[in-house]
Amino acid sequence: MLLQHSIAHSLPMSYTPSLQALQSLTQHDLEHVNRLILESFNQPIPMIHDIAQHIVRSGGKRIRPTLTLACHHVLGYAGQHHIPLATAVELIHTATLLHDDVVDESTLRRGIATANSIWSNQASVLVGDFLFSRAFQLMVASGSMDALQLLANASATIAQGEVHQLMVAGDLHTTTEVYLEVITRKTATLFEAATEIAPILAGYDTLRLPFATFGSTLGIAFQLVDDALDYAADQAVLGKTVGDDVREGKITLPLMVAYAAANEVERIFWERVISEGNVHDGDIPHAIALVQKHGGIATTLNLAQDYANQAHKALDEIADGLPKQANHHALRALHDTIAFCVHRAM
Amino acid sequence: MLLQHSIAHSLPMSYTPSLQALQSLTQHDLEHVNRLILESFNQPIPMIHDIAQHIVRSGGKRIRPTLTLACHHVLGYAGQHHIPLATAVELIHTATLLHDDVVDESTLRRGIATANSIWSNQASVLVGDFLFSRAFQLMVASGSMDALQLLANASATIAQGEVHQLMVAGDLHTTTEVYLEVITRKTATLFEAATEIAPILAGYDTLRLPFATFGSTLGIAFQLVDDALDYAADQAVLGKTVGDDVREGKITLPLMVAYAAANEVERIFWERVISEGNVHDGDIPHAIALVQKHGGIATTLNLAQDYANQAHKALDEIADGLPKQANHHALRALHDTIAFCVHRAM
Repeated sequence: MLLQHSIAHSLPMSYTPSLQALQSLTQHDLEHVNRLILESFNQPIPMIHDIAQHIVRSGGKRIRPTLTLACHHVLGYAGQHHIPLATAVELIHTATLLHDDVVDESTLRRGIATANSIWSNQASVLVGDFLFSRAFQLMVASGSMDALQLLANASATIAQGEVHQLMVAGDLHTTTEVYLEVITRKTATLFEAATEIAPILAGYDTLRLPFATFGSTLGIAFQLVDDALDYAADQAVLGKTVGDDVREGKITLPLMVAYAAANEVERIFWERVISEGNVHDGDIPHAIALVQKHGGIATTLNLAQDYANQAHKALDEIADGLPKQANHHALRALHDTIAFCVHRAM
Repeated sequence: MLLQHSIAHSLPMSYTPSLQALQSLTQHDLEHVNRLILESFNQPIPMIHDIAQHIVRSGGKRIRPTLTLACHHVLGYAGQHHIPLATAVELIHTATLLHDDVVDESTLRRGIATANSIWSNQASVLVGDFLFSRAFQLMVASGSMDALQLLANASATIAQGEVHQLMVAGDLHTTTEVYLEVITRKTATLFEAATEIAPILAGYDTLRLPFATFGSTLGIAFQLVDDALDYAADQAVLGKTVGDDVREGKITLPLMVAYAAANEVERIFWERVISEGNVHDGDIPHAIALVQKHGGIATTLNLAQDYANQAHKALDEIADGLPKQANHHALRALHDTIAFCVHRAM
């Protein structure tokens, strides 16, 4: 409910954003991508196949490759190289999920047992490496050196963001600036690469910057909403375990807002739970109550809306610079996607 | 002593193979590679820098990039693209070392504490990912799509070998064929790629196969010797912990030979230690004694010598197909390198 109130003002009452337009636009291409994902698991080691299948089945909405495909539609790209590149984007994402679950010692992802809990941390590390390598093989298959450079840079930046996040885990004095740096690197970078691929392949160098800005700001908004959901989501609906970030001592904006406004007793609570990692029964509901008391979710969603607005603006810039054969229907689907990403909590 | 006897017959008595010729040949280029390795750690996250420095400092002789550099000398390659590619080869190797130590739960590498034991498994997984990404950035910088494809394929194959090794861990019924498959994928593949880069960059497509064969057979010989050393090495000299493979339930040829020849009592011992992973005080010296009793080291080193002979033969084929500007001195240095790799136990 809180989620609904904090952002409903920015949209007409009757508007319910969905991914429908995006999905019907990209459905055909996405079937190619899904086939290529499955094909990329064909190799002689059964365990790789099993784990890769598992992580892909328990995966989400394929938002990143779908963005890549839709952006190519915007530019009326007529080639086929966007298919292996969109697949590579999803495989890089999948590889990071496998490694993230090892790093976070997670046992559930979207309500399904994680690969590391079924097989082992060792298997997850190595199969993550395999998927990462497969992504690069597909990038090579695309034949675009510029796209290769973009995604190789993105991969290095994502790893930097993940290490940075690990470094500041448990540190209640993390600044908003550092938090935004972390989520920009670990999440927004791959959204940015996913969308910037389109002007590279379609040969519109002048549109690289607004496409990159669209992806990056959407990625930041997406992560902010994700971090808000960890203190608010209905686990049954979203398959997301509420309170994971508290359990892992992960410092995100909702918590930072609550800590900044904490009284002495609350501060001692956060220090025990987050800095010392000493989590008792009942601490998670209490943490959620404190975050809600101090408006941590609303603040986070408001910031997400700011970034979403920047993403809409970047799409407007793209529209201004569009060639004749551009697909304005695809552009509207991307506006919907931004709205959906901010509203998915509802 | 056993090591010396088993292979000394194949060489004149006075011959002591060394890496000296190889090292003086590649010294200048290797300084570039070392600089590029250090430069590639320049980024804003201190923990990445610290861990990367640590793993590179505790690394070995840079045998893989040195092979890349030497093979370019053989072909009289005059460009500069071999430097980033040799660096990429070493970074891929370094990334796999970081992940291997997590998978094997190792605490020592060459007598130095492993990164995962100093920092954490989490940090090692993520910094491995970073180094792997950096390798791909350098491959892109080389501008050779064929070299990119070669190394992307190699990375996927290495991960397959590592997962395969994990799958057969503790399985005393592993066949020699499967064992050779595992070491070919996990070790020989990167040696093969390291040497095959040279004809690709230098533009000698007809020499790709013998260069690949040279690297691959040398890589298998190298791993066979490594596996023999685990039952024979003097820890103080080599900085290698004897008996690691037994502790980790890793099935290698020396053990396979001993198990195949085991009597009933010995078989029960191996099943407890390897299949059940139930290792008691005194088991490691007993395992080593059993391997030596049944000639496991000699058999392994004889097979290593067979592969070394194939590597020498591949170099002879290269010599036959060499262009005028070829560096025969470099070729001799590679023959020495093969001999050194087989003799490093002494």
